[in-house]
Amino acid sequence: MVKDDKGLLIVLSGPAGVGKGTVCRALRKIDTNIAYSVSATTRPPREGEVDGVDYFFKSKEEFRKMIERNELLEWAQYVDNYYGTPLQFVKDTIAKGKDIILEIEVQGAKKVKEKYPEGVFIFLMPPSLEELRERIVERGTETKDLIEKRMNVAQKEIDMMKNYDYVVENDEVDAAVKRIQAIVTAEHLKRERLMDKYKRLVEVE
Amino acid sequence: MVKDDKGLLIVLSGPAGVGKGTVCRALRKIDTNIAYSVSATTRPPREGEVDGVDYFFKSKEEFRKMIERNELLEWAQYVDNYYGTPLQFVKDTIAKGKDIILEIEVQGAKKVKEKYPEGVFIFLMPPSLEELRERIVERGTETKDLIEKRMNVAQKEIDMMKNYDYVVENDEVDAAVKRIQAIVTAEHLKRERLMDKYKRLVEVE
Repeated sequence: MVKDDKGLLIVLSGPAGVGKGTVCRALRKIDTNIAYSVSATTRPPREGEVDGVDYFFKSKEEFRKMIERNELLEWAQYVDNYYGTPLQFVKDTIAKGKDIILEIEVQGAKKVKEKYPEGVFIFLMPPSLEELRERIVERGTETKDLIEKRMNVAQKEIDMMKNYDYVVENDEVDAAVKRIQAIVTAEHLKRERLMDKYKRLVEVE
Repeated sequence: MVKDDKGLLIVLSGPAGVGKGTVCRALRKIDTNIAYSVSATTRPPREGEVDGVDYFFKSKEEFRKMIERNELLEWAQYVDNYYGTPLQFVKDTIAKGKDIILEIEVQGAKKVKEKYPEGVFIFLMPPSLEELRERIVERGTETKDLIEKRMNVAQKEIDMMKNYDYVVENDEVDAAVKRIQAIVTAEHLKRERLMDKYKRLVEVE
């Protein structure tokens, strides 16, 4: 089959607690064609963690230099440590024609979008919305305050969606994984990705 | 799962002889969620053909009126008969939330694109290109004339691609069908299709 030479950067994000990690691990188990981004961190390695596999372990000075040199797709500070996504690792993987997935919180995804807008941005959505809607229609079973509170949370989640290409509901992990795989397959079949490759194939030197 | 209320118009096209009909029949067998467009024609029904199932059978006068009233997504004349795609059947199917597929030659697809640009346009591509490329690289095994002739055909096929959203290689019918299914799944997960639906879900009357 004619394939584009470049891999895809797939960004999987969504609200806290939606199950990004679980979905990502399940995808990793069944789909060995996708590489996983390795983060850089200044926190010390834990027992059994391998540099370059679990994390790229860096000193604070090294990390700050990476920030200065624009070597991170995104980064954040939690408590006393830095965490970030090294750009070079992503670039190398994509250049080899391999897809790479980045599981990241919404703020980080926003920064990645700025630096790499050609990525495929997937928003993982909690499955509770239609259920929530039913409760509201039926009324009475929940207090007005509780419903309003939940609605506000849902509205904020929906507002987060707007910079994403796809929305995948995490109603069931296996179903969510299949949807993500379909998105990756379809993205590879996009005409704008393939046409140049086809053109090169018919060029006679 | 939260679903958009509208179905998709999927247009499957490609060069003559690529196997559009075979792929479409195979898809029809395994995917009962997709409806198939029923064409209108002025040719008389054959034994066993049912009006509204195999075709909408029309007199020439009726067909010309449909053209005048802009009731056809596209139409063409072959020998002495008209063939076309009734717009209303497509609209009704989509409004019910059901996807509909249209298997059509390239000229017809172009007309559909003009009238319904929000459709999903899939170009079915013959699988011979990389093989052809290998022959050219190896040289000697084919005459220069024959290679050039084939290259010209391939170049014309590639030029046809440009108005399409996706390119699916028909290297194997089952593989092509799976790719089309992935495209349909992914298209339904597009954020711009789902975001309004989500917004309506959290509106409290």
